Amino acid sequence: MAKQLTLQSPLDMHLHLRDGDMLKLVTPLTAEGFAGAVIMPNLVPPVDNLDKLLEYKERILGACEGHKFDPFMTLFFRQYTEQELANAKDHMIGIKLYPAGATTNSEAGVKAIDAVEPVFKMMEEMEIPLLVHGETHGFVMDREKEFLASYDYLASKFPKLKITMEHITTADAVAMLDRHENLRATVTLQHLIITLDDVAGGLLNPHLFCKPIAKRPEDREALLQAALEAHPKLMFGSDSAPHPLEKKESCGCAAGVFTAPLAIARLAQLFDKHEKLDNLQAFLSGNAQTQYGVTPPKKLVTVTKEPFTVPEAYTGFQQHVVPMHAGEELEWRISQID
Amino acid sequence: MAKQLTLQSPLDMHLHLRDGDMLKLVTPLTAEGFAGAVIMPNLVPPVDNLDKLLEYKERILGACEGHKFDPFMTLFFRQYTEQELANAKDHMIGIKLYPAGATTNSEAGVKAIDAVEPVFKMMEEMEIPLLVHGETHGFVMDREKEFLASYDYLASKFPKLKITMEHITTADAVAMLDRHENLRATVTLQHLIITLDDVAGGLLNPHLFCKPIAKRPEDREALLQAALEAHPKLMFGSDSAPHPLEKKESCGCAAGVFTAPLAIARLAQLFDKHEKLDNLQAFLSGNAQTQYGVTPPKKLVTVTKEPFTVPEAYTGFQQHVVPMHAGEELEWRISQID
Repeated sequence: MAKQLTLQSPLDMHLHLRDGDMLKLVTPLTAEGFAGAVIMPNLVPPVDNLDKLLEYKERILGACEGHKFDPFMTLFFRQYTEQELANAKDHMIGIKLYPAGATTNSEAGVKAIDAVEPVFKMMEEMEIPLLVHGETHGFVMDREKEFLASYDYLASKFPKLKITMEHITTADAVAMLDRHENLRATVTLQHLIITLDDVAGGLLNPHLFCKPIAKRPEDREALLQAALEAHPKLMFGSDSAPHPLEKKESCGCAAGVFTAPLAIARLAQLFDKHEKLDNLQAFLSGNAQTQYGVTPPKKLVTVTKEPFTVPEAYTGFQQHVVPMHAGEELEWRISQID
Repeated sequence: MAKQLTLQSPLDMHLHLRDGDMLKLVTPLTAEGFAGAVIMPNLVPPVDNLDKLLEYKERILGACEGHKFDPFMTLFFRQYTEQELANAKDHMIGIKLYPAGATTNSEAGVKAIDAVEPVFKMMEEMEIPLLVHGETHGFVMDREKEFLASYDYLASKFPKLKITMEHITTADAVAMLDRHENLRATVTLQHLIITLDDVAGGLLNPHLFCKPIAKRPEDREALLQAALEAHPKLMFGSDSAPHPLEKKESCGCAAGVFTAPLAIARLAQLFDKHEKLDNLQAFLSGNAQTQYGVTPPKKLVTVTKEPFTVPEAYTGFQQHVVPMHAGEELEWRISQID
């Protein structure tokens, strides 16, 4: 009898669904296996007011094809007024900050953050979480590490503000989790598995190119250990980011790895390999429920240790997206969803 | 009156010319501006005996389109006999070692080298230089650094063996130059200009993907300073490596940057920017003549500070190769060749 595990309401705490035809293609691929997901607001133009947020949520729900699925919406950070925040609060899970003003210099990064501190203050008082893409504009391998001083600053200055370090990729970021009570983090599937070697160590692999870029073996190891131990402040966030094939396999490939449809099965394989299957529930849902105080719809997802070949691509609505592990055989698969 | 400099017999001390149609396309692009070049032997199958070497040299000379050009031939390292070395000695400039047996562990790297020490001994006695691709099979950013212990070992154990550290990319390798009298190095154009940021810091750029991969800003700075100062043991070696377009702009891009046709003009721009034009002659030819004791054919190459747009591609013989800086305007150009 094949090994099995039933997961309760898996959550993806960092997800890109895009819009239009791409949204129609990829939304059901997440909504089928996940009970909910934190939806990134970086559309063009960004989701930066309540109307846009509610309309975007409608489009997502309209694309769910009947699956029970809660899109946890976010706003794109800007100088919001108190009234705007009050109106939006009940419709979102947090506000996502892309520190565009930050530079290679972490002091300057903090300074850029400094200018918008009144918004952080209001968010802290209204208990609206802050989700951060924590990278400076420095050397690609140093960007996250250089940003950590900004996390230190923010977490200290706003001790009641819940701050999520999104898609962490370094051992240094893992260590931050134990430094401030109000810091937590998401980590992707790929950063538990790959290093820069997989992107650029042999042939260049555009389908594993993402931001933040995959780092060193010791970084992957620290992330993996924290995930396997289900560190209570570490949540799964796929950062699954679909791009049309022509934007991946070309000169000037866009950053992003598409993992949504295979993430649960691949995580089961990974946790099983390290004999930590018992911790997968917390990493995939429990930690997020505790950290965010959310209660997702009930969904039972059974994974079984049976081979599953990842499709070469997911197509539809004139879209063509190549997933991680395209064409490869995984050892686990989703066998039942109730 | 535009700034000018006349270079005498520029040399490219590390060059890939491939074979067949590609050789026909790229050979004249080097032979026009350079007086000579060290030709890499990594064909499929490799150039690993005198007959193959002489035949390859013929094909290169046949593709020079009348340009004065000396191909300095190399053999692909293997367990050569003393007789083979004696026969080949006068027809080549050295033997190129790709340490396929080396691993992440530099001790194991030395061990792998250990097995072929009799060949090194013969080369030392016969004054045949050893050219080394110095990378382990470790993490992509560490491969060169991990290999440095092998250089240390070889240079100490065979003090009369002239060893060239090919295409160095790190500050640590630059420091090695002053540690052993018998170590010297080549450096490419791209490693004086780019870092990993240019390959994977923004969009992924396959045309700047090469091995060894471009490293950190402080590495580039150390390489650039050594080049600008015309460190007497540092020679220009383009490692210009043409790949057909379909092998660059695709999933699984091959490593190699094609710089041959623009290297001299781009180096003039670089040395001019840093007010070191006076040192370009040594870096581009003098150091190599001293290190290898070669006398290339006389060729006067005048570069002028006038704009030059790099072609989008070089095509011919059913080949299509995209150069570095494709479509960009350089500030210097080759204005005359005598």
